[in-house]
Amino acid sequence: MPKVKLWISIAQKSMKILIIGATGTIGKHVTAALQKDHEVIKAGSKSGDIQVDISSLESIENFYKQCGKFDALLCASGDGQFGPLASMKDADFRVGVNSKLMGQVNLVLIGQHYINSKGSFTLTSGALAEDPIIMGVNLSTMNGAINGFVKGAAIELENGVRINAVGPDIVEESPGYFSYFPGHIPVTMSRVTQAYIKSVLGGQTGQIYKVL
Amino acid sequence: MPKVKLWISIAQKSMKILIIGATGTIGKHVTAALQKDHEVIKAGSKSGDIQVDISSLESIENFYKQCGKFDALLCASGDGQFGPLASMKDADFRVGVNSKLMGQVNLVLIGQHYINSKGSFTLTSGALAEDPIIMGVNLSTMNGAINGFVKGAAIELENGVRINAVGPDIVEESPGYFSYFPGHIPVTMSRVTQAYIKSVLGGQTGQIYKVL
Repeated sequence: MPKVKLWISIAQKSMKILIIGATGTIGKHVTAALQKDHEVIKAGSKSGDIQVDISSLESIENFYKQCGKFDALLCASGDGQFGPLASMKDADFRVGVNSKLMGQVNLVLIGQHYINSKGSFTLTSGALAEDPIIMGVNLSTMNGAINGFVKGAAIELENGVRINAVGPDIVEESPGYFSYFPGHIPVTMSRVTQAYIKSVLGGQTGQIYKVL
Repeated sequence: MPKVKLWISIAQKSMKILIIGATGTIGKHVTAALQKDHEVIKAGSKSGDIQVDISSLESIENFYKQCGKFDALLCASGDGQFGPLASMKDADFRVGVNSKLMGQVNLVLIGQHYINSKGSFTLTSGALAEDPIIMGVNLSTMNGAINGFVKGAAIELENGVRINAVGPDIVEESPGYFSYFPGHIPVTMSRVTQAYIKSVLGGQTGQIYKVL
Protein backbone atom coordinates (compact mmCIF):
# COMPACT_ATOMS: atom_id res chain seq x y z
CA MET A 1 0.00 0.00 0.00
CA PRO A 2 2.41 2.71 -1.19
CA LYS A 3 -0.24 5.40 -0.95
CA VAL A 4 -0.76 4.82 2.75
CA LYS A 5 2.98 4.72 3.33
CA LEU A 6 3.37 8.10 1.67
CA TRP A 7 0.73 9.63 3.88
CA ILE A 8 2.44 8.40 7.01
CA SER A 9 5.78 9.82 6.01
CA ILE A 10 4.18 13.22 5.39
CA ALA A 11 2.53 13.23 8.79
CA GLN A 12 5.85 12.56 10.47
CA LYS A 13 7.91 15.18 8.66
CA SER A 14 10.33 16.57 11.21
CA MET A 15 9.52 20.06 12.45
CA LYS A 16 11.36 22.71 14.40
CA ILE A 17 9.36 23.25 17.57
CA LEU A 18 9.90 25.90 20.25
CA ILE A 19 8.57 25.00 23.69
CA ILE A 20 8.31 27.68 26.37
CA GLY A 21 8.21 26.19 29.84
CA ALA A 22 9.88 23.07 28.50
CA THR A 23 11.13 21.92 31.90
CA GLY A 24 7.85 22.66 33.72
CA THR A 25 5.24 20.20 34.97
CA ILE A 26 3.44 20.04 31.64
CA GLY A 27 6.25 21.15 29.34
CA LYS A 28 8.62 18.33 30.21
CA HIS A 29 6.08 15.72 29.09
CA VAL A 30 5.23 17.56 25.88
CA THR A 31 8.94 18.01 25.17
CA ALA A 32 9.65 14.32 25.74
CA ALA A 33 6.85 13.33 23.39
CA LEU A 34 7.78 15.72 20.58
CA GLN A 35 11.55 15.47 20.61
CA LYS A 36 11.44 11.84 19.49
CA ASP A 37 10.60 12.94 15.94
CA HIS A 38 11.27 16.66 15.89
CA GLU A 39 13.87 19.28 16.61
CA VAL A 40 12.79 20.84 19.88
CA ILE A 41 14.23 24.05 21.26
CA LYS A 42 13.57 24.13 24.99
CA ALA A 43 12.99 27.56 26.47
CA GLY A 44 12.23 28.74 29.96
CA SER A 45 12.61 31.70 32.27
CA LYS A 46 15.64 30.13 33.95
CA SER A 47 16.34 26.75 32.32
CA GLY A 48 16.39 25.16 28.89
CA ASP A 49 18.41 25.85 25.76
CA ILE A 50 17.36 29.50 25.61
CA GLN A 51 16.05 31.80 28.32
CA VAL A 52 13.04 33.99 27.67
CA ASP A 53 10.96 36.23 29.91
CA ILE A 54 7.53 36.31 28.25
CA SER A 55 6.53 39.42 30.22
CA SER A 56 9.21 41.37 28.30
CA LEU A 57 8.75 42.39 24.66
CA GLU A 58 12.49 42.73 24.22
CA SER A 59 13.12 39.25 25.61
CA ILE A 60 10.49 37.72 23.28
CA GLU A 61 11.95 39.52 20.27
CA ASN A 62 15.47 38.32 21.19
CA PHE A 63 14.16 34.81 21.68
CA TYR A 64 12.70 34.62 18.18
CA LYS A 65 15.81 36.16 16.66
CA GLN A 66 17.95 33.51 18.35
CA CYS A 67 15.64 30.67 17.27
CA GLY A 68 15.16 31.75 13.66
CA LYS A 69 12.33 30.42 11.52
CA PHE A 70 10.29 27.66 13.15
CA ASP A 71 7.25 25.46 12.59
CA ALA A 72 5.53 25.43 15.95
CA LEU A 73 5.56 27.36 19.17
CA LEU A 74 4.05 25.87 22.33
CA CYS A 75 3.70 27.92 25.49
CA ALA A 76 3.18 25.94 28.68
CA SER A 77 4.15 28.84 30.88
CA GLY A 78 2.60 31.99 32.29
CA ASP A 79 2.01 33.27 35.81
CA GLY A 80 -1.27 34.19 37.37
CA GLN A 81 -2.08 35.45 40.85
CA PHE A 82 -3.85 33.15 43.27
CA GLY A 83 -5.61 35.03 46.02
CA PRO A 84 -8.92 36.14 47.51
CA LEU A 85 -11.09 38.55 45.53
CA ALA A 86 -11.86 40.55 48.68
CA SER A 87 -8.29 41.79 49.03
CA MET A 88 -7.26 41.69 45.37
CA LYS A 89 -5.85 44.89 43.91
CA ASP A 90 -5.07 46.07 40.39
CA ALA A 91 -1.37 45.24 40.88
CA ASP A 92 -2.20 41.64 41.86
CA PHE A 93 -4.42 41.28 38.83
CA ARG A 94 -1.72 42.64 36.53
CA VAL A 95 0.50 39.64 37.38
CA GLY A 96 -1.74 37.49 35.22
CA VAL A 97 -2.30 40.25 32.67
CA ASN A 98 1.41 40.77 32.08
CA SER A 99 2.45 37.11 32.09
CA LYS A 100 -0.26 34.55 31.36
CA LEU A 101 -2.24 36.90 29.09
CA MET A 102 0.07 39.43 27.42
CA GLY A 103 3.05 37.06 27.58
CA GLN A 104 1.22 34.54 25.45
CA VAL A 105 -0.43 37.20 23.26
CA ASN A 106 2.92 38.81 22.53
CA LEU A 107 4.45 35.43 21.68
CA VAL A 108 1.90 35.36 18.85
CA LEU A 109 1.90 39.07 17.88
CA ILE A 110 5.68 38.95 17.50
CA GLY A 111 6.03 35.30 16.51
CA GLN A 112 3.63 35.62 13.56
CA HIS A 113 6.46 37.45 11.77
CA TYR A 114 8.95 34.59 12.34
CA ILE A 115 6.84 31.43 11.95
CA ASN A 116 6.98 29.29 8.81
CA SER A 117 3.90 28.97 6.63
CA LYS A 118 1.57 26.23 7.87
CA GLY A 119 3.13 26.58 11.31
CA SER A 120 1.17 26.62 14.55
CA PHE A 121 0.92 28.32 17.89
CA THR A 122 -0.35 26.40 20.91
CA LEU A 123 -1.13 28.40 24.03
CA THR A 124 -2.28 27.30 27.48
CA SER A 125 -5.50 28.39 29.13
CA GLY A 126 -7.29 26.19 31.69
CA ALA A 127 -10.49 24.84 33.13
CA LEU A 128 -10.93 27.78 35.51
CA ALA A 129 -12.32 29.90 32.67
CA GLU A 130 -15.60 28.07 33.09
CA ASP A 131 -15.18 26.07 36.31
CA PRO A 132 -13.94 28.60 38.88
CA ILE A 133 -12.41 27.98 42.28
CA ILE A 134 -12.09 30.17 45.36
CA MET A 135 -9.03 32.44 44.98
CA GLY A 136 -8.85 31.69 41.27
CA VAL A 137 -10.51 34.79 39.79
CA ASN A 138 -7.32 36.07 38.19
CA LEU A 139 -6.72 32.77 36.41
CA SER A 140 -10.37 32.40 35.38
CA THR A 141 -10.03 35.80 33.73
CA MET A 142 -6.73 35.07 31.98
CA ASN A 143 -7.91 31.68 30.76
CA GLY A 144 -11.08 33.21 29.34
CA ALA A 145 -8.96 35.87 27.67
CA ILE A 146 -6.65 33.32 26.04
CA ASN A 147 -9.65 31.35 24.77
CA GLY A 148 -11.07 34.53 23.21
CA PHE A 149 -7.69 35.44 21.75
CA VAL A 150 -7.29 32.05 20.08
CA LYS A 151 -10.71 32.33 18.45
CA GLY A 152 -10.05 35.86 17.26
CA ALA A 153 -6.50 35.23 16.04
CA ALA A 154 -7.31 31.97 14.23
CA ILE A 155 -9.34 33.72 11.55
CA GLU A 156 -6.61 36.26 10.81
CA LEU A 157 -3.31 34.37 10.90
CA GLU A 158 -1.85 34.22 7.40
CA ASN A 159 -0.06 31.62 5.26
CA GLY A 160 -1.95 28.72 6.81
CA VAL A 161 -0.62 29.37 10.30
CA ARG A 162 -2.85 27.84 12.97
CA ILE A 163 -3.50 28.59 16.64
CA ASN A 164 -5.13 26.58 19.42
CA ALA A 165 -5.12 26.52 23.20
CA VAL A 166 -5.00 23.63 25.61
CA GLY A 167 -7.24 24.16 28.63
CA PRO A 168 -6.47 21.54 31.26
CA ASP A 169 -8.01 21.06 34.68
CA ILE A 170 -5.57 20.60 37.59
CA VAL A 171 -2.95 18.06 36.50
CA GLU A 172 -2.00 14.92 38.41
CA GLU A 173 1.58 16.06 38.94
CA SER A 174 0.62 19.23 40.84
CA PRO A 175 -0.52 17.73 44.17
CA GLY A 176 0.42 20.94 45.97
CA TYR A 177 -2.62 22.56 44.35
CA PHE A 178 -5.14 19.75 44.89
CA SER A 179 -6.62 21.30 48.05
CA TYR A 180 -7.48 24.46 46.09
CA PHE A 181 -9.40 22.38 43.54
CA PRO A 182 -11.95 20.50 45.68
CA GLY A 183 -13.85 17.92 43.70
CA HIS A 184 -11.79 18.42 40.58
CA ILE A 185 -10.45 15.15 39.18
CA PRO A 186 -6.75 15.66 38.38
CA VAL A 187 -6.10 14.93 34.73
CA THR A 188 -3.29 12.66 33.61
CA MET A 189 -0.16 14.09 32.08
CA SER A 190 -0.67 11.70 29.22
CA ARG A 191 -4.03 13.23 28.24
CA VAL A 192 -2.71 16.77 28.61
CA THR A 193 0.30 15.92 26.46
CA GLN A 194 -1.93 14.47 23.76
CA ALA A 195 -3.86 17.75 23.55
CA TYR A 196 -0.67 19.65 22.72
CA ILE A 197 0.27 16.95 20.20
CA LYS A 198 -3.16 17.26 18.60
CA SER A 199 -2.67 20.99 18.19
CA VAL A 200 0.86 20.73 16.74
CA LEU A 201 0.52 17.69 14.51
CA GLY A 202 -3.18 18.04 13.67
CA GLY A 203 -4.83 20.41 11.23
CA GLN A 204 -7.35 22.28 13.35
CA THR A 205 -7.30 25.96 14.27
CA GLY A 206 -9.20 28.20 16.65
CA GLN A 207 -9.85 25.31 19.00
CA ILE A 208 -9.75 25.13 22.78
CA TYR A 209 -8.72 21.59 23.68
CA LYS A 210 -10.22 21.17 27.12
CA VAL A 211 -8.69 18.37 29.18
CA LEU A 212 -11.18 17.73 31.97
CA MET B 1 -54.81 38.88 46.78
CA PRO B 2 -52.71 40.80 49.33
CA LYS B 3 -49.89 38.23 49.20
CA VAL B 4 -49.26 38.79 45.50
CA LYS B 5 -49.41 42.54 45.97
CA LEU B 6 -46.76 42.36 48.69
CA TRP B 7 -44.43 40.40 46.41
CA ILE B 8 -44.77 42.97 43.68
CA SER B 9 -43.92 45.84 45.98
CA ILE B 10 -40.80 44.02 47.16
CA ALA B 11 -39.61 43.43 43.61
CA GLN B 12 -39.97 47.11 42.82
CA LYS B 13 -38.16 48.48 45.87
CA SER B 14 -36.26 51.51 44.68
CA MET B 15 -32.52 51.06 44.35
CA LYS B 16 -29.57 53.35 43.91
CA ILE B 17 -27.99 52.38 40.60
CA LEU B 18 -24.73 53.65 39.11
CA ILE B 19 -24.49 53.43 35.33
CA ILE B 20 -21.15 53.94 33.60
CA GLY B 21 -21.55 54.88 29.98
CA ALA B 22 -25.05 56.14 30.75
CA THR B 23 -25.26 58.34 27.68
CA GLY B 24 -23.79 55.75 25.30
CA THR B 25 -25.55 53.66 22.67
CA ILE B 26 -26.53 50.96 25.14
CA GLY B 27 -26.34 52.93 28.36
CA LYS B 28 -28.99 55.49 27.41
CA HIS B 29 -31.59 52.76 26.92
CA VAL B 30 -30.70 50.98 30.15
CA THR B 31 -30.77 54.30 31.99
CA ALA B 32 -34.18 55.20 30.58
CA ALA B 33 -35.59 51.83 31.62
CA LEU B 34 -34.20 51.85 35.16
CA GLN B 35 -34.72 55.46 36.14
CA LYS B 36 -38.48 55.09 36.06
CA ASP B 37 -38.40 53.21 39.37
CA HIS B 38 -34.92 53.78 40.71
CA GLU B 39 -32.41 56.44 41.61
CA VAL B 40 -29.89 56.37 38.77
CA ILE B 41 -26.54 58.12 38.88
CA LYS B 42 -25.34 58.60 35.33
CA ALA B 43 -21.59 58.43 34.83
CA GLY B 44 -19.39 58.75 31.79
CA SER B 45 -15.95 59.77 30.69
CA LYS B 46 -17.20 63.18 29.57
CA SER B 47 -20.94 63.40 30.24
CA GLY B 48 -23.45 62.43 32.89
CA ASP B 49 -23.87 63.42 36.55
CA ILE B 50 -20.34 62.33 37.46
CA GLN B 51 -17.26 61.87 35.31
CA VAL B 52 -15.12 58.77 35.68
CA ASP B 53 -12.17 57.42 33.72
CA ILE B 54 -12.30 53.67 34.26
CA SER B 55 -8.69 53.27 33.10
CA SER B 56 -7.59 55.22 36.19
CA LEU B 57 -7.63 53.67 39.68
CA GLU B 58 -7.72 57.11 41.26
CA SER B 59 -10.70 58.16 39.14
CA ILE B 60 -12.62 55.00 40.05
CA GLU B 61 -11.88 55.46 43.75
CA ASN B 62 -13.04 59.10 43.57
CA PHE B 63 -16.15 58.06 41.71
CA TYR B 64 -17.22 55.63 44.41
CA LYS B 65 -16.43 58.12 47.15
CA GLN B 66 -18.64 60.70 45.44
CA CYS B 67 -21.48 58.21 44.90
CA GLY B 68 -21.45 56.65 48.37
CA LYS B 69 -23.12 53.33 49.11
CA PHE B 70 -25.13 51.90 46.22
CA ASP B 71 -27.15 48.86 45.19
CA ALA B 72 -26.08 48.21 41.62
CA LEU B 73 -23.31 49.18 39.26
CA LEU B 74 -23.69 48.70 35.52
CA CYS B 75 -20.82 49.28 33.15
CA ALA B 76 -21.74 49.75 29.50
CA SER B 77 -18.41 51.31 28.65
CA GLY B 78 -14.86 50.22 27.86
CA ASP B 79 -12.61 50.68 24.87
CA GLY B 80 -11.02 47.99 22.76
CA GLN B 81 -8.75 48.24 19.75
CA PHE B 82 -10.10 47.30 16.35
CA GLY B 83 -7.38 46.42 13.90
CA PRO B 84 -5.63 43.69 11.92
CA LEU B 85 -3.73 41.01 13.83
CA ALA B 86 -0.86 41.19 11.32
CA SER B 87 0.15 44.68 12.43
CA MET B 88 -1.07 44.57 16.01
CA LYS B 89 1.44 45.46 18.69
CA ASP B 90 1.50 45.14 22.47
CA ALA B 91 0.57 48.83 22.83
CA ASP B 92 -2.53 48.37 20.64
CA PHE B 93 -3.57 45.36 22.65
CA ARG B 94 -3.16 47.25 25.93
CA VAL B 95 -5.96 49.64 24.90
CA GLY B 96 -8.44 46.87 25.59
CA VAL B 97 -6.50 45.55 28.57
CA ASN B 98 -6.47 48.92 30.34
CA SER B 99 -10.04 49.96 29.52
CA LYS B 100 -12.49 47.18 28.65
CA LEU B 101 -10.75 44.59 30.85
CA MET B 102 -8.99 46.26 33.78
CA GLY B 103 -11.44 49.18 33.78
CA GLN B 104 -14.32 46.83 34.45
CA VAL B 105 -12.27 44.57 36.75
CA ASN B 106 -11.20 47.54 38.86
CA LEU B 107 -14.79 48.79 39.07
CA VAL B 108 -15.47 45.50 40.89
CA LEU B 109 -12.22 45.17 42.88
CA ILE B 110 -12.73 48.68 44.28
CA GLY B 111 -16.53 48.73 44.19
CA GLN B 112 -16.88 45.57 46.29
CA HIS B 113 -15.87 47.72 49.27
CA TYR B 114 -18.62 50.30 48.62
CA ILE B 115 -21.59 48.22 47.44
CA ASN B 116 -24.56 47.44 49.69
CA SER B 117 -25.25 43.84 50.68
CA LYS B 118 -27.32 42.01 48.08
CA GLY B 119 -26.13 44.53 45.51
CA SER B 120 -25.01 43.63 42.01
CA PHE B 121 -22.38 44.35 39.38
CA THR B 122 -23.26 44.07 35.70
CA LEU B 123 -20.40 44.23 33.22
CA THR B 124 -20.37 44.17 29.43
CA SER B 125 -18.61 41.58 27.32
CA GLY B 126 -19.82 40.65 23.83
CA ALA B 127 -20.44 38.05 21.20
CA LEU B 128 -16.91 38.31 19.78
CA ALA B 129 -15.60 36.11 22.61
CA GLU B 130 -16.97 33.13 20.72
CA ASP B 131 -17.98 34.52 17.33
CA PRO B 132 -14.92 36.44 16.09
CA ILE B 133 -14.66 38.92 13.25
CA ILE B 134 -11.69 40.11 11.20
CA MET B 135 -9.89 42.89 13.10
CA GLY B 136 -11.69 41.96 16.31
CA VAL B 137 -9.03 39.90 18.11
CA ASN B 138 -8.51 42.45 20.86
CA LEU B 139 -12.21 42.53 21.66
CA SER B 140 -12.57 38.75 21.44
CA THR B 141 -9.84 38.54 24.06
CA MET B 142 -11.30 41.18 26.36
CA ASN B 143 -14.80 39.72 26.12
CA GLY B 144 -13.48 36.25 26.97
CA ALA B 145 -11.60 37.76 29.90
CA ILE B 146 -14.70 39.50 31.27
CA ASN B 147 -16.70 36.29 30.99
CA GLY B 148 -14.00 34.43 32.95
CA PHE B 149 -13.82 37.21 35.52
CA VAL B 150 -17.56 37.14 36.14
CA LYS B 151 -17.50 33.39 36.72
CA GLY B 152 -14.52 33.62 39.05
CA ALA B 153 -15.76 36.66 41.00
CA ALA B 154 -19.32 35.38 41.43
CA ILE B 155 -18.27 32.61 43.81
CA GLU B 156 -16.27 34.97 46.03
CA LEU B 157 -18.29 38.18 46.32
CA GLU B 158 -19.55 38.53 49.89
CA ASN B 159 -22.79 39.64 51.57
CA GLY B 160 -24.96 38.31 48.78
CA VAL B 161 -23.46 40.62 46.17
CA ARG B 162 -23.98 39.30 42.65
CA ILE B 163 -22.16 39.77 39.35
CA ASN B 164 -23.15 39.06 35.74
CA ALA B 165 -22.13 40.18 32.28
CA VAL B 166 -24.20 41.06 29.26
CA GLY B 167 -22.64 39.81 26.03
CA PRO B 168 -24.44 41.37 23.07
CA ASP B 169 -23.80 40.92 19.38
CA ILE B 170 -23.57 44.12 17.31
CA VAL B 171 -26.52 46.32 18.29
CA GLU B 172 -29.04 47.82 15.89
CA GLU B 173 -28.07 51.39 16.81
CA SER B 174 -24.43 51.00 15.71
CA PRO B 175 -24.81 50.93 11.90
CA GLY B 176 -21.30 52.32 11.50
CA TYR B 177 -19.98 48.91 12.59
CA PHE B 178 -22.32 46.70 10.53
CA SER B 179 -19.82 46.21 7.70
CA TYR B 180 -17.29 44.79 10.17
CA PHE B 181 -19.85 42.20 11.31
CA PRO B 182 -20.84 40.45 8.07
CA GLY B 183 -23.74 38.08 8.54
CA HIS B 184 -24.31 39.09 12.13
CA ILE B 185 -27.94 39.99 12.82
CA PRO B 186 -27.96 43.27 14.76
CA VAL B 187 -29.76 42.82 18.07
CA THR B 188 -32.48 45.19 19.22
CA MET B 189 -31.79 47.73 21.94
CA SER B 190 -34.88 46.40 23.69
CA ARG B 191 -33.42 42.89 24.05
CA VAL B 192 -30.05 44.21 25.17
CA THR B 193 -31.71 46.46 27.73
CA GLN B 194 -33.69 43.55 29.11
CA ALA B 195 -30.48 41.60 29.71
CA TYR B 196 -29.16 44.38 31.96
CA ILE B 197 -32.54 44.56 33.71
CA LYS B 198 -32.44 40.80 34.28
CA SER B 199 -29.03 41.11 35.90
CA VAL B 200 -29.95 44.04 38.16
CA LEU B 201 -33.49 43.09 39.19
CA GLY B 202 -33.10 39.31 38.99
CA GLY B 203 -31.42 36.98 41.45
CA GLN B 204 -28.83 35.17 39.35
CA THR B 205 -25.08 35.46 39.63
CA GLY B 206 -22.07 34.33 37.59
CA GLN B 207 -24.11 34.45 34.39
CA ILE B 208 -23.20 35.66 30.91
CA TYR B 209 -26.40 36.95 29.33
CA LYS B 210 -25.70 36.55 25.66
CA VAL B 211 -27.89 38.67 23.38
CA LEU B 212 -27.50 37.11 19.94
